[in-house]
Order: sequence, then C-alpha cells, then structure tokens
Amino acid sequence: MRVERAIARTCVQATPQFYDCDPMGVVWHGNYPRFLELGRVAVLQKIDYGYARMSESGYAWPVIDMGIRYAHPVNLHTDVEVETGIVEWENRLKLAFEIRDAQTRKRLTRGYAVHVAVDIATGEMLWETPAILRQKLEPFL
Amino acid sequence: MRVERAIARTCVQATPQFYDCDPMGVVWHGNYPRFLELGRVAVLQKIDYGYARMSESGYAWPVIDMGIRYAHPVNLHTDVEVETGIVEWENRLKLAFEIRDAQTRKRLTRGYAVHVAVDIATGEMLWETPAILRQKLEPFL
Amino acid sequence: MRVERAIARTCVQATPQFYDCDPMGVVWHGNYPRFLELGRVAVLQKIDYGYARMSESGYAWPVIDMGIRYAHPVNLHTDVEVETGIVEWENRLKLAFEIRDAQTRKRLTRGYAVHVAVDIATGEMLWETPAILRQKLEPFL
Amino acid sequence: MRVERAIARTCVQATPQFYDCDPMGVVWHGNYPRFLELGRVAVLQKIDYGYARMSESGYAWPVIDMGIRYAHPVNLHTDVEVETGIVEWENRLKLAFEIRDAQTRKRLTRGYAVHVAVDIATGEMLWETPAILRQKLEPFL
Repeated sequence: MRVERAIARTCVQATPQFYDCDPMGVVWHGNYPRFLELGRVAVLQKIDYGYARMSESGYAWPVIDMGIRYAHPVNLHTDVEVETGIVEWENRLKLAFEIRDAQTRKRLTRGYAVHVAVDIATGEMLWETPAILRQKLEPFL
Repeated sequence: MRVERAIARTCVQATPQFYDCDPMGVVWHGNYPRFLELGRVAVLQKIDYGYARMSESGYAWPVIDMGIRYAHPVNLHTDVEVETGIVEWENRLKLAFEIRDAQTRKRLTRGYAVHVAVDIATGEMLWETPAILRQKLEPFL
Repeated sequence: MRVERAIARTCVQATPQFYDCDPMGVVWHGNYPRFLELGRVAVLQKIDYGYARMSESGYAWPVIDMGIRYAHPVNLHTDVEVETGIVEWENRLKLAFEIRDAQTRKRLTRGYAVHVAVDIATGEMLWETPAILRQKLEPFL
Repeated sequence: MRVERAIARTCVQATPQFYDCDPMGVVWHGNYPRFLELGRVAVLQKIDYGYARMSESGYAWPVIDMGIRYAHPVNLHTDVEVETGIVEWENRLKLAFEIRDAQTRKRLTRGYAVHVAVDIATGEMLWETPAILRQKLEPFL
C-alpha cells in the first residue's frame, strides 16, 4: 500500500469543501474516493493513458478492490496533497495513495485501488494487463 | 411550482442519511437533487416512461432548469415524503416536487425541474414534446 | 441572476471528474451545486467572510432558494470557470453564478443562490442582513 | 470480511439511482460507501445504538479502515440487498457487508469497515471498546 515504492508518482493539491464534510465537521469517510480520483487522474495523465486513451485502446479498467486507512481526520478548508503512484502492473493495475496535510506534510490517510483490464469488445476480463499498459509505463521503469 | 395541481402524482418516502448532512447537522442544500430524483423516478414509472423506456423511444430528457426553495431544514434520520407530479407537458416536461416531514406532514421544501426532449439520433432539441409523452400521459389527463 | 452586475466578483477554475458524470457522459444536473460552492467560497474569501468568520460573527447563512439553468452540458475533463458575485445584500445575500467553458469562454450554465442570516444564539432568521455583512462589502461598493 | 459469521445481522433493500451511476452505466466504485451506510444504520438500530444513542453515551465512532471488493458491477435500478453484521467488538467495532442482487441473490460486492471509539469529552481514542457497546451486544451473543 506504500506510495514510496511506486512508479509514475504524482502529487496534486485539493481542498476539502463544505459538501465533503459530515456532521462531525470532518470529511466523511465515504467521500475520500473523490480525493483518490484526483490522484488517479494525475497518474493516468502522466503516463498518457487517461480515460479517453483507455477507450481508444479498447480496454476499460474497473476497480475491483479498494482500501482506505484513515489515520487522522481531514478538516474543512485544510489543504491536502494527494500523492499517487503505481505499485503493480503485471496482472492488474494497482495504485497506492497517500493524503497529507499540505502545510505540515503530516500523513493523514493511506489507500489503494486495484484495477483490472476488461476487453470492451468482448466484455472479458484479462488475467494479464495488456501490452499497451506496459508500453505506457516503460519510461517510468 | 405547486404539486397540488400536478397530474400523475406520486409520493415516496426517504430517510436523510449521515452522508447527506453537512457540518450544520442538516441535509446540505446541494444534496436535495438526490431526493428529487426519487420522486422523478416514481412519476416516470407511474406513467410507464422510465429511463429504459425513454431510450427505447429515441429521446433523452435532460434537465434545463431546476429550482429549489428551502423553507425548513431536513434533519438526519427524520423520514420525509417526496410528492411529485407533472405540471407541464406540451413544450417541455415540468415536474413539481414537495418534500414534507413524513410524521407531521409539514412542508419543508418545494422544487421544480424542467426537462426537454432531445432526439438521440440527431442530438436536436425538440420544441414540442414528442407524441410518446402525450400517449403516456393520456390515462392521467 | 446576471453575474455581470454583481460586486466582489471572482472566477475559479474547476475540472469535472468521472464521479460528477452520469450515464449520459456529462455532469449530472444535481452535481452542479458542488461547482457553485467553489464560487461561493471564493467570493466569501474575497470579502473576508468565510465560514469560520461567519461563525465568529454569530450568524449562520443557510441557502433558502437556489436556481440553475443548464444551457449546455458540461463534459468530463473539460475545464470550466465559475464566475460568482453578489447581487443582493440588503435583506438577504444573493449570489449569481455563471459557468463557462474555460477555453472557449462559452456560457454553459447560470445559477443563483439566496442566503439568509440566522442568529446562531437564538436560531432566529433576520429580515435584514446584519451590519457585519455590510462592513465586509464596503470596499466593493 | 465474511458476513456469514457476523452477529446482529440485518438485510436492507436499496435501489441504485441515476446519480449513483457513472459514464459506464454502473454504480461508480466510490459511491458504494453510501450503500454500506444503509447497512450500518440498520445494524446500529438493531442493537439500539444509533447515532443519537452514541452521542448520549459519550462516544463517537469514526471509521479508521474500510475495504470493498467489487466482484460484479451494480446496474441502475437493479434492486440490491445489503446484508450487514458485526464481526469484531472487543478492541474495535468491525462490520462486514455483502451486497447481493435482490432477485437472483448473486453476491456482487463484499466490504468491511472498522470503527474505533473516541471519548467525545477528551478526544482520546479507546484501545478497548467501552462497556456500553458490550451491553448493547449482549442479546446477540
């Protein structure tokens, strides 16, 4: 789950909004996937394999597993940074995430998401990631 | 905006959840469209013109205008009822909504949404609602 | 509803994400309040009356009316700009919003939101906006 | 993670809505926490320890860990059932979830969430769950 060992790492800033926060005044645990998505998009853009490119390549990449560990709450309007990278790519695409306080750099949350490739034409799940992913990752290996 | 004069009226119950509520402990104003959607789905089902039927009929019905008046806050786990009906159907499809406390029946919120028909094949917006809508509404006129 | 005549105007950029988009591939109409919130926060910050300042001042400012007109759909990953300003402040605080394509500057959506002041100590709604708001707005009049 | 061995099990029905679904036409993976919340609320109600009771008891119960495995996509308007139960309660409160197709009863998703008790007065996290939780669970052991 450690982003430290990931490749193609990116770091994006985000600001928790009023609508992210629950009656306890902190980001509701179920709203973190939106923050992870910002990191995912940044990594996919870095490797030139964003959602449009995915479709063009004939594959969809649904999430089959997600886990999030919440070490500290995230407060309204406290800027955070989401560091994201790729930790597996052979049989599946696994991303690791870390959310930190943007000021203090204190680690607040860790997470991961596992994607598998699905052939859009046949609907079949692939047991190995397709060649296109490895081409995209080559510059980062 | 009054649901009292609407046709094909339905009433569904809903329960505001923790994730609907903001740091003030009440449903965030921007989350009400999810409650309106429950009413919309009930009306469309009643007239046998749900999303699947819409697609089959060759039309999409995007919302072009929405308004919500919040008279009283909605609290966590306080059951509400969403009454919904159709108030216009000739040139556009207009729904009226009313959210009430399910126990006291006190009116909490009023709203409306205006949909227009778009021909899926051409992407063109229709200036009059298509015949299919009027057929579906006939039993309620 | 026109932002052109508003005071304390701000313009923030935003990028619609996958989670904002519905099965039609565009931002779901009910998700726009999140974009409006970004504009609201920018204006409140500009007048030095953000949520923390509001609480300190003894007032909450719930939304009692919101309206959105959707002229054109907003697509995934198409950057938009949200221009926001204040169009009423005497009896209530009214914000006007305009969402444009950040590249072409084409207007996509217009909206407004009306807030009223509530005295936190008594829970009473004020029929006139409190002095603090007019102090904050003075530099912009 | 298995709900089969859980205590205080509940099963609630839910219907995925348009706003839950993404451009692929299925529930976005990040929206599942809202479905899990319905199961959580049902279990807490069953053991008479809902959010109001929690506050009265002096404890908050934030989620510190959540995991979800997505075996099959969930489609728009396909009714699901969310079975939920308690699988740990000594040092922390762990819930297990299973989402099934309500018609075919096919298992679609599994998940878990771990809560810890926090003393509201001191803000301290408890390393053992407080007596009140064990009292509430006694009828189910």
